[in-house]
Amino acid sequence: MAGRLYGLGIGPGDPELLTLKAKRILEEVDLICTPQSSKDKRSVALDIVEEVVDCQGRVKYFFFPMTKDKLKLNQAWDKAAEEIIELLKLDQDVAFITLGDPLLYSTYIYILERVRGKEFEVETVPGITSINACSARLNLPLAEGREKVLIIPAAYDCDDLEEILTSYENVVLMKVSKNYEEIVNLLEKLDLVENGVFISRCGQEKEFISRNLRSLIGEKIDYLSMIIVKRHFKFDS
Amino acid sequence: MAGRLYGLGIGPGDPELLTLKAKRILEEVDLICTPQSSKDKRSVALDIVEEVVDCQGRVKYFFFPMTKDKLKLNQAWDKAAEEIIELLKLDQDVAFITLGDPLLYSTYIYILERVRGKEFEVETVPGITSINACSARLNLPLAEGREKVLIIPAAYDCDDLEEILTSYENVVLMKVSKNYEEIVNLLEKLDLVENGVFISRCGQEKEFISRNLRSLIGEKIDYLSMIIVKRHFKFDS
Repeated sequence: MAGRLYGLGIGPGDPELLTLKAKRILEEVDLICTPQSSKDKRSVALDIVEEVVDCQGRVKYFFFPMTKDKLKLNQAWDKAAEEIIELLKLDQDVAFITLGDPLLYSTYIYILERVRGKEFEVETVPGITSINACSARLNLPLAEGREKVLIIPAAYDCDDLEEILTSYENVVLMKVSKNYEEIVNLLEKLDLVENGVFISRCGQEKEFISRNLRSLIGEKIDYLSMIIVKRHFKFDS
Repeated sequence: MAGRLYGLGIGPGDPELLTLKAKRILEEVDLICTPQSSKDKRSVALDIVEEVVDCQGRVKYFFFPMTKDKLKLNQAWDKAAEEIIELLKLDQDVAFITLGDPLLYSTYIYILERVRGKEFEVETVPGITSINACSARLNLPLAEGREKVLIIPAAYDCDDLEEILTSYENVVLMKVSKNYEEIVNLLEKLDLVENGVFISRCGQEKEFISRNLRSLIGEKIDYLSMIIVKRHFKFDS
C-alpha cells in the first residue's frame, strides 16, 4: 500500500477557476505540496488554494531557486522528488499544486519525471492556463476556424521570433519580462505592436492589462506576464 | 436594465473539470444555451453540465450545422445571436456553454462577435481545453523549458505541415478525423509516427487512446479527436 501523487493545476489566479476535481482532491489529500521561489515569501499558489480549501496543518513547502543553472535546479528537483517519494511510501496521498496547468512549463513536470515509472500511482489534473484565462479576461478569441496558435516561452532567446510572428495568426509570448524591450522593438519593426496586448497576473490582485506595449518599456515587468499577438487584429491603445 | 451573457467553458468531458466559477454561474443564470449539431441528437455539452447542475426548465438549444459553408454558418450564428440578444433585452442572464474553452475554436466566438460592442455585459469564463486534459490524462508534459507548442486545427488542409512537424518540439493536431490517413502517412515519412499519440473524447464515456497511429488507418475516427506529436519523445506502441 502506498500513497498517490496528484499533480494539480489550480489556474492562474482567480480561486474560482479551480476545477471541481482539484477542490475535491485538495480536500481529501493528506499533504499539499507547494513550490516557493524564495524562502521568506509566501506561495502564490497556496494563497489561491486557501481561498477555497482549508489547508491548515497539511502544507509542505518546496524551495525551487529562480535560476537557469541546471545543476542547482536538478538538485532541488531531486530533493523534492525524494521527499515526496518518502511520503508516498508512508501511504500519504500528496497533491503537488501548480499555477496554471501542471504540464505546461511547470515545476511539476520535473517531479513527475522522477516519480513516474516507480510503484506509485500518479494522477495529473489539468488546470486553466494563464493563456486561456487572459483570452477570456479580454473577451478575445485565441483562435478560430483554420487559424493556428503558437506558444513561446519568451524568457528564452528565440532566434526565429521574427519569422514566427509573421507566419502565425496567433502567437502567445509567455514570461516576457526578461526580453520585453527587445520583443516590443521587434513587434514595432514588423508593424505588429498594435496587434499585441500585455497582461500580467491575470485574475490575481495585481492583475495589469495594457494595449499600449510601447508605454511599458523601461517599467518593471512582472515575472508572470505575457503578450498575445493577433496578426489580423489591431488593439486600440 | 439588461441581462448578461456568459460564455462558459465546461472542459472536454469529465464533469469534475468544470470550474467552480462555471458551476456557480450555471446555477445562477436564467437560461442555459447549448449548441447542437443535429436536431435529434442530445447535446454533449449539456450532458456534461447536467451531471453537476440541475438545468431543468432552463435549457435552450441552438442548432449549428456541421458544415464549412460560410453562408449557412453565418445564418445560424446570426439567428442564434439575435435570439440571445432578445433574451438579454428581456433582462435574462444567459450562459452559452461550450466544450473545452469558449475562445479556442468554439462557436461561442461567433456569438461573441455579434453581441460585443452593444449595450450588454459579456463575461467569458475559461474552460479546461481538450489539449490540457489529454496531456494530463497521459501524464505527458505538453511543453517544458524553452520548448514551443504549436496548435493546428487539422480539419483544414495545411500546406506547411511537414515544415511545422520538423520545426517544433510539440505539435497538437486538433480534429484529425478528416485528414487522418494523410497525417499519419506524413508522420511516417518524417519518422515521427512513434512520436505521436492519439486521443478522442478525453474524459467522456467513449474516451479512446492509442499510441499506435498506424493501426487506426481505415477505422472510423471520432470527430472529437487529436494527435499530440512530441518530436523528442517516442511512445511505446
